[in-house]
Amino acid sequence: MTTKSPTRVGVIGASGYAGEELVRLLLKHPEIDLVAVTSRQSAGKTLGEVFPRFAHELKADSLKFTNPEAREVGKLADVVFLALPHGVSAEAGADLVRDGGRVIDLSADFRIRDPKVYAEFYGKQHPAPDLLERAVYGVPEIHREKIRSAQLVACPGCYPTSILLPLLPLLRAKAIDPRTIIVASLSGVTGAGRKVEADYLFAECNESMRPYGIPKHRHLGEIEQELSAAAGEKIIVQFTPHLVPVSRGIISTIYADLKEKADAASIGAIFEKAYGEEPFVRLLSQARLPDTKNVVHTNFIDIAWRIDSRTNRLIVMSAIDNRTQWTSGQAVQCFNLMCGYDEAAGLS
Amino acid sequence: MTTKSPTRVGVIGASGYAGEELVRLLLKHPEIDLVAVTSRQSAGKTLGEVFPRFAHELKADSLKFTNPEAREVGKLADVVFLALPHGVSAEAGADLVRDGGRVIDLSADFRIRDPKVYAEFYGKQHPAPDLLERAVYGVPEIHREKIRSAQLVACPGCYPTSILLPLLPLLRAKAIDPRTIIVASLSGVTGAGRKVEADYLFAECNESMRPYGIPKHRHLGEIEQELSAAAGEKIIVQFTPHLVPVSRGIISTIYADLKEKADAASIGAIFEKAYGEEPFVRLLSQARLPDTKNVVHTNFIDIAWRIDSRTNRLIVMSAIDNRTQWTSGQAVQCFNLMCGYDEAAGLS
Amino acid sequence: MTTKSPTRVGVIGASGYAGEELVRLLLKHPEIDLVAVTSRQSAGKTLGEVFPRFAHELKADSLKFTNPEAREVGKLADVVFLALPHGVSAEAGADLVRDGGRVIDLSADFRIRDPKVYAEFYGKQHPAPDLLERAVYGVPEIHREKIRSAQLVACPGCYPTSILLPLLPLLRAKAIDPRTIIVASLSGVTGAGRKVEADYLFAECNESMRPYGIPKHRHLGEIEQELSAAAGEKIIVQFTPHLVPVSRGIISTIYADLKEKADAASIGAIFEKAYGEEPFVRLLSQARLPDTKNVVHTNFIDIAWRIDSRTNRLIVMSAIDNRTQWTSGQAVQCFNLMCGYDEAAGLS
Amino acid sequence: MTTKSPTRVGVIGASGYAGEELVRLLLKHPEIDLVAVTSRQSAGKTLGEVFPRFAHELKADSLKFTNPEAREVGKLADVVFLALPHGVSAEAGADLVRDGGRVIDLSADFRIRDPKVYAEFYGKQHPAPDLLERAVYGVPEIHREKIRSAQLVACPGCYPTSILLPLLPLLRAKAIDPRTIIVASLSGVTGAGRKVEADYLFAECNESMRPYGIPKHRHLGEIEQELSAAAGEKIIVQFTPHLVPVSRGIISTIYADLKEKADAASIGAIFEKAYGEEPFVRLLSQARLPDTKNVVHTNFIDIAWRIDSRTNRLIVMSAIDNRTQWTSGQAVQCFNLMCGYDEAAGLS
Repeated sequence: MTTKSPTRVGVIGASGYAGEELVRLLLKHPEIDLVAVTSRQSAGKTLGEVFPRFAHELKADSLKFTNPEAREVGKLADVVFLALPHGVSAEAGADLVRDGGRVIDLSADFRIRDPKVYAEFYGKQHPAPDLLERAVYGVPEIHREKIRSAQLVACPGCYPTSILLPLLPLLRAKAIDPRTIIVASLSGVTGAGRKVEADYLFAECNESMRPYGIPKHRHLGEIEQELSAAAGEKIIVQFTPHLVPVSRGIISTIYADLKEKADAASIGAIFEKAYGEEPFVRLLSQARLPDTKNVVHTNFIDIAWRIDSRTNRLIVMSAIDNRTQWTSGQAVQCFNLMCGYDEAAGLS
Repeated sequence: MTTKSPTRVGVIGASGYAGEELVRLLLKHPEIDLVAVTSRQSAGKTLGEVFPRFAHELKADSLKFTNPEAREVGKLADVVFLALPHGVSAEAGADLVRDGGRVIDLSADFRIRDPKVYAEFYGKQHPAPDLLERAVYGVPEIHREKIRSAQLVACPGCYPTSILLPLLPLLRAKAIDPRTIIVASLSGVTGAGRKVEADYLFAECNESMRPYGIPKHRHLGEIEQELSAAAGEKIIVQFTPHLVPVSRGIISTIYADLKEKADAASIGAIFEKAYGEEPFVRLLSQARLPDTKNVVHTNFIDIAWRIDSRTNRLIVMSAIDNRTQWTSGQAVQCFNLMCGYDEAAGLS
Repeated sequence: MTTKSPTRVGVIGASGYAGEELVRLLLKHPEIDLVAVTSRQSAGKTLGEVFPRFAHELKADSLKFTNPEAREVGKLADVVFLALPHGVSAEAGADLVRDGGRVIDLSADFRIRDPKVYAEFYGKQHPAPDLLERAVYGVPEIHREKIRSAQLVACPGCYPTSILLPLLPLLRAKAIDPRTIIVASLSGVTGAGRKVEADYLFAECNESMRPYGIPKHRHLGEIEQELSAAAGEKIIVQFTPHLVPVSRGIISTIYADLKEKADAASIGAIFEKAYGEEPFVRLLSQARLPDTKNVVHTNFIDIAWRIDSRTNRLIVMSAIDNRTQWTSGQAVQCFNLMCGYDEAAGLS
Repeated sequence: MTTKSPTRVGVIGASGYAGEELVRLLLKHPEIDLVAVTSRQSAGKTLGEVFPRFAHELKADSLKFTNPEAREVGKLADVVFLALPHGVSAEAGADLVRDGGRVIDLSADFRIRDPKVYAEFYGKQHPAPDLLERAVYGVPEIHREKIRSAQLVACPGCYPTSILLPLLPLLRAKAIDPRTIIVASLSGVTGAGRKVEADYLFAECNESMRPYGIPKHRHLGEIEQELSAAAGEKIIVQFTPHLVPVSRGIISTIYADLKEKADAASIGAIFEKAYGEEPFVRLLSQARLPDTKNVVHTNFIDIAWRIDSRTNRLIVMSAIDNRTQWTSGQAVQCFNLMCGYDEAAGLS
């Protein structure tokens, strides 16, 4: 319980799936006063009209979308969330940061610290390279202290959280050979956002399973950045995403050679040490394996591991909700850290 | 086109998903006279009553399930398909083979040649170990000539076909390091058969993705047996299946280190040489990746490959219909070979 | 906001889908102290072990299932929820009520006031017919005042709420001809509970749509009871449910002849008068139609209506979450009324 | 078996879902030589490239899409199928018919005989009203003899077949009161065609059920036209479609007051007389109800009926595959009639 007064919050570009989920959480957050939601296409409509599932909830019938300049939102709000498309977000973020505002960006624009790596993965020069160094990568389990004082937080892509949290403690403990890391991920269809493209039509996704983005998916940029930082050496991983007909959720199955003999208990001890106190990491017992249906609509990540004694390989599996843990939930957790609230406020 | 007279065929244990799909194909096969279908629980009912989707199709309204001894079916039929549960099939198969009949078994009972390996993976002694040597593993692309003259064919499990066909030519060509093979597979729910268990209820599978059978799934026995035979050395692979909410289909994504530098074209040449003439193998162009919706309700396997120059790893992806290619389609293809019909008869 | 102290609550038979959803809400309810959850099959396990999605939530890792007599639970708790199967619930409920406890029953056992109607629809004599009169049918929008003082509340079946709320104001206003009421309902698969039967396997429900329970589904008993009470005459309705491959949700499309000419506005006025102040009823504008995806995971019912001037018929459509509105959400709303809390406590 | 030579067939506008299914059937039809498939956007590509699931099937790897004038296709082919969008089809159809060709149109353009009714339902004047009279509505069970000699066949919409076949015999037998007909239909998402609109995205359809097109869906025009013709009086029906997350299939549940007392057997006799000899109509026993999973990928319609003695109402339920029975299957059946082949050729 906190005695701080509510924080004024704005959301820019709130009409996609990520924005919708974020607004849902912000509306219910006990410490937040949602003062502005903006959208070019929805300006003038209430939240309840644009997101019918929110109608009659709290402010949803009264708060209207507006369409001001980003800097105007910065004047109204203490913290601004950006739920804009990749590429568009950088400019709004730069304006807000230069005005001294605090910004939580859900796009990819500030996730990569090195402008060259950004150009490699996104195919163009970064519009505000000076800000890349100031941005903090928004995974509380990795960068908690930096997030507390960050002015600009870059929330991760949907896959990276599910891959980084299982791998980082193992790399830090030097338990695995970093050159052998292979990741097979399965994602629900909302991972692609609300793109109106033939590939994401119901009849093209239903009763379909398919790999895509092979071999060099964009999220590799941020995944390898964080893994390399933790390992103290350049890490390259194999990553293959698959599209699966569920609305929400990601499963990542990760393979790596063990450096030395280990058993489930010794690996468990590494995870326990890293995450035993984390509010949103659940380490599963050896009797269970992750299932996305246990994490969707929550901010939890479920992690399990097995050792194959025949191959001396470690297999780590994780499950998250790509919509909550990727965007809104994790972003709200960062917000709580930045503002000094209970880290789980509005999330349980 | 053939001038041979129809072959009399019987199916023992036809009331599961595998049996249903098999009966569907047999009913439409131009060279088959389906003379007996048996089922303990459905005896006395017509095919159309038990499988309403077949009602009004050809013999479905007149042919009735019976419940005789296997040997009685052997007297009526030139070839007998066994669609019985694992463990039950061995006994029926042994009786039929000893009577001189020709048998195509869809269960796991005759897939493993080494009784010790059978015991390792199935947890009990094989009831008819002398027959294991005589059984031919029913993948035409591997054992075509042996299948032609086989008396007993053991059809593969649902995963192995999707893994063996991509890997065998690569191993034979010594293009990959066999110690680095990792397979992540995704399967539709019918892979489990018509098991009435809570895990397979709609509400437990829908909007769920989950790994299972980690790290030592039963199908590893037959996968490693066939890979080892092709490679001329003992091969151990990493295999992790995942359950996904589709009714049909399997995607296997396979990773292996390249032994030497290769490119997509040189790998393509290996596949082209192996499968260029195969009627049911489709090698995809570099513009496409497999998608189960292109193979379900067919007997095709779609195969694609990519090389990651950053890791010098080869990624091969395949898609099959677990119900057609696993059981009925492949079994009918074996039947055609055994009886001298066009290999694709009844399958296109 | 209330200053009352928390109420001690127990749940008997909490291991089905209804119990799971109920426990989820009770755990998060700000005014509830969950003191006992019972289950014969899960006794000794924690909530988090039985429902992995709750692990790490509040008391889920510490509270264990027990298996006492119902009367023992009654001694610990101020209010007891029964999530037992039909037929089993009556006995536990009778014991608790006779001991003076307050009971909210999620089964069908106390929904029918007339023992003869109960026998007609459930095929047996009621075990505690004297209690039927004392039970209050748990739809707050109909029986709010009686619920406040009720000792025994019988929560409705999954379909009735979606049918009663649209029809009752129209019958009271004598706007429709009661002899012409026809209801076509579509339900997600959890409506059947966690029954491990072949009909509810994934492969039998996925890509399937089917009517069932035609023409006399059990829920007609309670539907006609409540409609008749409101209309002041015996009402018989046509009701045909359909099973659809979604996990959650019900759509009811209701047809009735208008008694006199009416327009969308005059019908809207009837609904507005009835439900304008209701916290969980949303009357949609003429621009929108109900969609279950807007109500699942909420306690809302969305209602829309259209008049066909060609036929002088009124079509009313409603959407609810069969798991929340049917069982847990509505039951918690009743609990709030019974205990004098804000009616929406724990539900928004 | 027939001794006729193959018929040369062309398909104009073959790149939507209807065209794809049609091409699949035409490729496998034993009496058809597919000489031209056209598509503006796919010209130059093979069938196998545009529809990867057909690759390696018969001519799919060699036959290329072209983009000629419709009249050019008419010179190559004896029969031309039109799978063009509504509105576009009329012009191509008119050209072909005026050149003396035989045309089977899958669009809505020639379904309505009365230009005024066309204008009422489609909001514009018909571009070739003189042809409306010559077009035959392509439901073989209704217009078999006219189809045999037709020059222009207009295949029905996806819903009408599922509604007309159950109702027509009942109206002809004067068993039901035509003013009381109400139809609730459930459709899979491919019913909307391959429209790239947000409403049909996976994430908007999955876990969603919703009515739409209330109260006056376009298909009412053709439904009422055919019902009125059969009844000898103007019939107006209530029709409410619902969108359900399956790829294929339609369920129609139809309600009507019985004119006189009837029982299941007497209604069954009416259906048996009408459809006892029909190759693609299956009348279900009283033990079963329709389920779309029994008809998808087939050309069958399954019909069941129940009488509610409490209301004296008849409930008739039907199931079809909206893609096969609506478009390709029924169109091929018409083709067989027009060309004198076995009516079921290429369809079983």
